[in-house]
Amino acid sequence: MESIKVFAPATVANVSCGFDVLGFAVEQPGDELVLRKSNSNRIEIVEITGDNGKLPRNPTENTATVAIQKFLEKLEISQGLEVSLYKKMPLGSGMGSSAASAVAGVFAVNKLLGEPLSVAELLPFAMEGERIACGAAHADNVAPSLYGGLVLIRSYEPLDVVRVPMPKDLFCVLMHPHIHIRTEDARAILKRQVPMQKAIQQSGNLAGLILGFTQSDYGLISRSMQDVIVEPVRSILIPGFHAIKKAALENGALGFSISGSGPSMFALCKGKEIADRVGEVMKSSLESLEIDSEIFISEVNLDGPKVI
Amino acid sequence: MESIKVFAPATVANVSCGFDVLGFAVEQPGDELVLRKSNSNRIEIVEITGDNGKLPRNPTENTATVAIQKFLEKLEISQGLEVSLYKKMPLGSGMGSSAASAVAGVFAVNKLLGEPLSVAELLPFAMEGERIACGAAHADNVAPSLYGGLVLIRSYEPLDVVRVPMPKDLFCVLMHPHIHIRTEDARAILKRQVPMQKAIQQSGNLAGLILGFTQSDYGLISRSMQDVIVEPVRSILIPGFHAIKKAALENGALGFSISGSGPSMFALCKGKEIADRVGEVMKSSLESLEIDSEIFISEVNLDGPKVI
Repeated sequence: MESIKVFAPATVANVSCGFDVLGFAVEQPGDELVLRKSNSNRIEIVEITGDNGKLPRNPTENTATVAIQKFLEKLEISQGLEVSLYKKMPLGSGMGSSAASAVAGVFAVNKLLGEPLSVAELLPFAMEGERIACGAAHADNVAPSLYGGLVLIRSYEPLDVVRVPMPKDLFCVLMHPHIHIRTEDARAILKRQVPMQKAIQQSGNLAGLILGFTQSDYGLISRSMQDVIVEPVRSILIPGFHAIKKAALENGALGFSISGSGPSMFALCKGKEIADRVGEVMKSSLESLEIDSEIFISEVNLDGPKVI
Repeated sequence: MESIKVFAPATVANVSCGFDVLGFAVEQPGDELVLRKSNSNRIEIVEITGDNGKLPRNPTENTATVAIQKFLEKLEISQGLEVSLYKKMPLGSGMGSSAASAVAGVFAVNKLLGEPLSVAELLPFAMEGERIACGAAHADNVAPSLYGGLVLIRSYEPLDVVRVPMPKDLFCVLMHPHIHIRTEDARAILKRQVPMQKAIQQSGNLAGLILGFTQSDYGLISRSMQDVIVEPVRSILIPGFHAIKKAALENGALGFSISGSGPSMFALCKGKEIADRVGEVMKSSLESLEIDSEIFISEVNLDGPKVI
C-alpha cells in the first residue's frame, strides 16, 4: 500500500456530569487525512484545507504529524510520509478538532504500515499529538475518537480507558455557535473547590448515567444528565445557553450540555426524528440572539476512525 | 395469616468511591422480626433481644415500629400489632442496624396484610423509620436492605433509587471492631469542600465501579474501588485501618473500605475461598492491636428481606 485515506470523528468530551472522565464520538463531523509514502526520510505536510490557514504547517508543531512521528519513533520505523489534512469541522470549538487530527494521523500510519499495533495501543501517540495542540496529553477527546462509542477515562496514572456500552439509536445534535471562547477563560472560570453536597449529587448522576447507558434505560439517562458543577459556571460564557437547553429538552432531547469546554453545545436524542427537531429549535433559539451557528446531526459513532 | 417472621439484611453504605450514593446488602448478619396481629388498636413492642437494652421500647421511638406505623397510616389501616425484634447484628457499627429493623418492620407488615404494596413502594416508610433512628430519612442503608443487591441512590429530590446489576459470586467480609465512633464525629471530620481534582478522580472511579459491576469485570471493580475523598479522612478514626486494608488486598480482596460511617470495615471478594482467607487476615491484623472484632462473611444478598 502506497497511500491511504482515513476519517476520524469529532468528539464530545466532558459529557454532562462526566466532567473530565467521559466522552463520545459522533459520525459527523470529523477530519479526513491522506497519508502517502515518500522517498524522503521526513514527514511532510503537503496540504491542509478547511482551517483558514490557522494550523501549523511545520510537522513538529502539527498535532497529526506529531502523533505520527511519535508512532514511528516508538516502533523504530524510518519511513518518509506526505500528509494531507482536510479539516471538515470547526477548530477550537469544543468538538475535539485537534484530537480528530491526531487520531486520523496515527490510525492512518498504523494501517499504511500493516497494522503493527492494535487500535488501543495507538492511544498514547494520539495523546502526544494532543499535547502539542493544547499543552497537556488529555485523553478525553482522543480516546473516544480512537475507540468510538462512549469512553470512560477512569484514571491517568496509570492510564485506564474503558468503553461504556450504549444503546445503538442515540443521535447527537452538535451545535457550534459562531462565538469564540478562549480555552484559558473556560479553565480559569472553574472553581478549584467543589462543595461536598454538589460532589455527591454529581456522583449520583454520573453513576446513573453509566447505568442508564449500559442498561439502555433512556429515562435514567435523561434524569442523570445533570451537571451541577461545571455547566452552571461555564454556561455563563455562552450566550443563550439556558434558552437553547430549555428548547432542546422541551422538544424531546434526553439531555443537553456543553461539548468539551465549549462554546459548542450538544443534545443527546433517541432516534433521528427527535434529533432533527431538536437541531431546528436549537438553531432558531440561537438565531433569535442574532448569532449564527453550524449544526451537525449524526448517530453516536460506535466504530471510531475508518479507512475511506 | 395471624403472624409472620421475617429477616432483613445488614448493609454496607458509602461503598468506597460511592459515598452517600451506593450501598449493598449482605446475607449475614441481619435482623429477625416477628409480627403478630392483636386485638388492641395499638402497635406494641413485646420483646427486643440482642440490643443489651439499648433500643427504645416505646413504639413511637423505635425505628421498626415507626416504619410500621407510617405504613398503616398511609394505607389507613387500623390493626393492632405485636412486634418482637431479634437484633442479630451489632448496633451503631456502620452496618445499617436501624435500617435492617425498619425494613424488617415494613416488609413484615406488608406481607402480613396481604401485600397491598410492592417492595419498592415500601421504601418511604422504611426511610421514616431511619429518620427516627438517625435524624434524617437517609436511603443509603434502607434501600439496599429492602431491594437487595447493589443500589444506587441517584437523587433524593425527587427520590430516585436504582438497582445496579452485579456478578453473583461476590462475597463480603464485614468486620466490626470493638471500638466506638460517634456518628457526630464521623460527620464532623468530613470536609465541606472537595478539591476539583479529587472530585474528578472520584468520578472516574465511581463510573468505573458501576461499569465493572454491570459488566462483571472484576479487574475494573478492583481498580475502581478507591475512595480518595472520605476514606482518607474517616480512616483516621479507625485504629489499624491501613494495615488491615493492606492485608485484605494482599490476600486477594477486590477492594476494601469503611462500611457506612464506620467503624466497621468491609472487603469485597470473588468467591468464598478468598473471602474466608481475607476474613482471617483482617481479624488477626486487628488482634495485633489487641482490639477484638466480629467477622461476618456472606454473599452479597441479591434478594433483600425474606419470610423465615
